[in-house]
Amino acid sequence: MILLSSSPMILVNGSSGCWTTMYPGGKLNRGLSVIDSYKLLKEEKELTDEEVFLACTLGWCIEWLQAYFLVLDDIMDNSHTRRGQPCWFRVPKVGMIAVNDGIILRNHIPRILKKHFRGKPYYVDLLDLFNEVEFQTASGQMIDLITTIEGEKDLSKYSLPLHHRIVQYKTAYYSFYIPVACALLMSGESLDNYTEVKNILIEMGIYFQVQDDYLDCFGEPEMIGKIGTDIEDFKCSWLVVKALELCNEEQKKLLFENYGKDDPACVAKVKELYKVIKLEGVFAEYESKSHEKLVNSIEAHPTKAVQAVLKSFLGKIYKRQK
Amino acid sequence: MILLSSSPMILVNGSSGCWTTMYPGGKLNRGLSVIDSYKLLKEEKELTDEEVFLACTLGWCIEWLQAYFLVLDDIMDNSHTRRGQPCWFRVPKVGMIAVNDGIILRNHIPRILKKHFRGKPYYVDLLDLFNEVEFQTASGQMIDLITTIEGEKDLSKYSLPLHHRIVQYKTAYYSFYIPVACALLMSGESLDNYTEVKNILIEMGIYFQVQDDYLDCFGEPEMIGKIGTDIEDFKCSWLVVKALELCNEEQKKLLFENYGKDDPACVAKVKELYKVIKLEGVFAEYESKSHEKLVNSIEAHPTKAVQAVLKSFLGKIYKRQK
Repeated sequence: MILLSSSPMILVNGSSGCWTTMYPGGKLNRGLSVIDSYKLLKEEKELTDEEVFLACTLGWCIEWLQAYFLVLDDIMDNSHTRRGQPCWFRVPKVGMIAVNDGIILRNHIPRILKKHFRGKPYYVDLLDLFNEVEFQTASGQMIDLITTIEGEKDLSKYSLPLHHRIVQYKTAYYSFYIPVACALLMSGESLDNYTEVKNILIEMGIYFQVQDDYLDCFGEPEMIGKIGTDIEDFKCSWLVVKALELCNEEQKKLLFENYGKDDPACVAKVKELYKVIKLEGVFAEYESKSHEKLVNSIEAHPTKAVQAVLKSFLGKIYKRQK
Repeated sequence: MILLSSSPMILVNGSSGCWTTMYPGGKLNRGLSVIDSYKLLKEEKELTDEEVFLACTLGWCIEWLQAYFLVLDDIMDNSHTRRGQPCWFRVPKVGMIAVNDGIILRNHIPRILKKHFRGKPYYVDLLDLFNEVEFQTASGQMIDLITTIEGEKDLSKYSLPLHHRIVQYKTAYYSFYIPVACALLMSGESLDNYTEVKNILIEMGIYFQVQDDYLDCFGEPEMIGKIGTDIEDFKCSWLVVKALELCNEEQKKLLFENYGKDDPACVAKVKELYKVIKLEGVFAEYESKSHEKLVNSIEAHPTKAVQAVLKSFLGKIYKRQK
């Protein structure tokens, strides 16, 4: 089956075309980043049809990886909706079969890679890359899950290093690193020579998640497309971690009493506290400092084309409102 | 961590050593088959320490693959116990985190392969093999799950081809094919030259599952270590499929009315019917015919060492009582 999305990407796949009907409406940012990055790495040179096709194929592999994570995460988080629709496991005939459906989605990645990349010199590196990133993401999910385990909720465990670790593993590798790594492999590069690029992308991923945490509380629901529930859900958000750093004893007591309660009055008290300790300003400062650091790291990179890739990523997320 | 089991296999792994404490008591047949098969393929030659180590490592990878399937299957089947202990997801602090734990178990396979086989000429073939077999198993699980979906139970869908398809994909590839395929790759063989061996192993896997279905109903609980519940569970067992073939209209009606009911009186009626239509004799005939066919196929293979591998497998399962 060939499935055309609104993007210039082409999905080449067999049996599980169901994904795009399961959760339509994704932005496909991760997948599209492969082709964007590859174009920038090739500088002025026109891409061949084969190059466009292969870059799109890798983009779709990343989207399938994400699909697999979302289907299983929704089960583990006992979520209700995703992109305005019931979660896949909530569909009556599906139920726990969703676990296997997630596995089937995931199993298509090596099938797609084998079909289109088996003869390429970087085939084995692609397999290693997807395996490594999947493991990193599952490890991040594990840290996140054991932190928010029911009956073991403990705000005093929340800290900046814990937040950093969860975000790095659960989000940054698969959202920021893997699209660029795919484009580098397609360009014939060895990823061993790009550890600094990896570090920059991970830092960008963390910056992106901090924005996400900020927007969950302070963003406009119409802009971000959802009503944030991080406070109710006892999430290890950057905001609560920063608040714990900045609070005096009395404020800390208020936070402990009201964080993680599914009661609008408690949520309002937490939000009020965030305002009192001026978290919005702390975030604005974090944002400009992070941006400055990232620009400096990017400009220290010897290759202009790689700089262009990293700047393009940064440009897409700096001061985003959604 | 290095973990010694009662077998000569050595587990070389990091964080998820929890598996052997999750569900101890497995027989490790699949894993041990790698080293047994490899020894037979090498004929008289003494194995080096490295060869023993690598064969054991692949054996453990297969055991981890099985571990991952069992943890997730127990969730999907809503099972209660496994090897006399509560299923992993039934442990109170675990719950749906078990989904991610299954994924983490699975992610260790490519990590182990990378650590110990990255430089071998057959490394990429090992990755492809494990990916292919995982997909086949997940596909078998999918066919099984959609056949026994709650509210859609329909005995008239059960047939020999359906039974064959479920067993082939869900069990035979990962239980019978992959151990031999691992040993062949370690011996420097290309799997493309062994499709007939694959077919024989798949047939053996199906024969093994038919025995399993038979023993679930007619085996001694003390011998098989469990009390069979295939009738209550509406399983697409070889027995019910054969019964549907052999029944007259009246007997078929009895089967439709009593199969899949969690009531000892209904189960007894089904078992009584199995006796009336002499299913035990039908099975005995199936067993000797299958054995004869398998022996003929094995003896048609040009290589004595490969014949020895296949005969060793067959010898382990022929007329087994448990």
